[in-house]
Amino acid sequence: MRMRMRAHLDERINECSDYILKSQEELYEYINGKNFHIEIGCGKGGFIVETAKQNPDICHIAVEHIPNVAILAAEKAKGENLENLRFVFKNVMDLSEDIKDGTVKRIYLNFSDPWRKNKQAKRRLTHPGFLKVYKRWLSEDGEIFLKTDNEKLFEFSLNSFCSEDFHLKNITFDLHNSSFEGNIMTEYEKKFYDEGKNIFRLEARK
Amino acid sequence: MRMRMRAHLDERINECSDYILKSQEELYEYINGKNFHIEIGCGKGGFIVETAKQNPDICHIAVEHIPNVAILAAEKAKGENLENLRFVFKNVMDLSEDIKDGTVKRIYLNFSDPWRKNKQAKRRLTHPGFLKVYKRWLSEDGEIFLKTDNEKLFEFSLNSFCSEDFHLKNITFDLHNSSFEGNIMTEYEKKFYDEGKNIFRLEARK
Repeated sequence: MRMRMRAHLDERINECSDYILKSQEELYEYINGKNFHIEIGCGKGGFIVETAKQNPDICHIAVEHIPNVAILAAEKAKGENLENLRFVFKNVMDLSEDIKDGTVKRIYLNFSDPWRKNKQAKRRLTHPGFLKVYKRWLSEDGEIFLKTDNEKLFEFSLNSFCSEDFHLKNITFDLHNSSFEGNIMTEYEKKFYDEGKNIFRLEARK
Repeated sequence: MRMRMRAHLDERINECSDYILKSQEELYEYINGKNFHIEIGCGKGGFIVETAKQNPDICHIAVEHIPNVAILAAEKAKGENLENLRFVFKNVMDLSEDIKDGTVKRIYLNFSDPWRKNKQAKRRLTHPGFLKVYKRWLSEDGEIFLKTDNEKLFEFSLNSFCSEDFHLKNITFDLHNSSFEGNIMTEYEKKFYDEGKNIFRLEARK
């Protein structure tokens, strides 16, 4: 069964081949010297596909390391014939050296895994170890947009961003009852929203 | 009845006279060129009296504009014969010019009035208008310690501090379940703690 699922996945990946960047060369060719927006951990892609649709002039890259999930996102983008969105099926840390310094205009971190145990803190996508990489990637006016339903991750993230000297703004503990406009919901967020759970959000700049 | 209460209050204020700074001259004489710690809105004084007891080498000033409440705090300090704590029965804004620039080592903001309505935002003690005054007062290594039970005030305060370029650290959404040691509870805080309500806290530096 597992073999069949896997074979099926390879087929689907093959079919979306144009939407998946498989090497540093393909990444550079796609970016072509432009600044771009990147979502780290795009999940099923609902957010980044809609974001790319609404911003046709911006080049988007979505990173997701779980192929079974990432393929759903790539298929969505292909279904929409999006020219300004491509996928990297990798762990973000494996991309660390592939992305040139100062080239990322915006990083989206949406509902990242909170890694609840203290000993797992280093895996959180807002751990100072990651923030140092993002800081290197970001352009001078680059920014990070973070959303999460997890209060502990948000508290941890605030401290991390502050310790790495990011400048924060538009911090909200309840996005859907805030003055923020134009929010695009992720699949997770829709679920939490329906449950009446509040969403935390912030923007961070170098 | 009101007149009698008031007469009674005047008597009590008279009895605590040594503990109340009534003019800029008395303030300067007490501070005597030293850096000092100040609590803005000390309420019944439980926090600042205990803090002054535990830090005999630091000069403390507590500000409270409601005399019926402030007198309770002054009586507590007198009862403990504290030499390192004095009171100002004023609204903090009336002190703005009395305190010399760069002389305050630490400001405590504990359970300040959240002023819930948006049109009251300017009255919140963490409104940028106030933060600009504190920034002027603070010494180079000066710091602000804030505690509140009010999530909305905390969210507002985070944004204010960030917009005024303060550097934040030790942000917690649940002080009594955090790693922070040596917390001294205010009267309000004891009540909230008994009710199982969580307390927010942060530290801010220029």
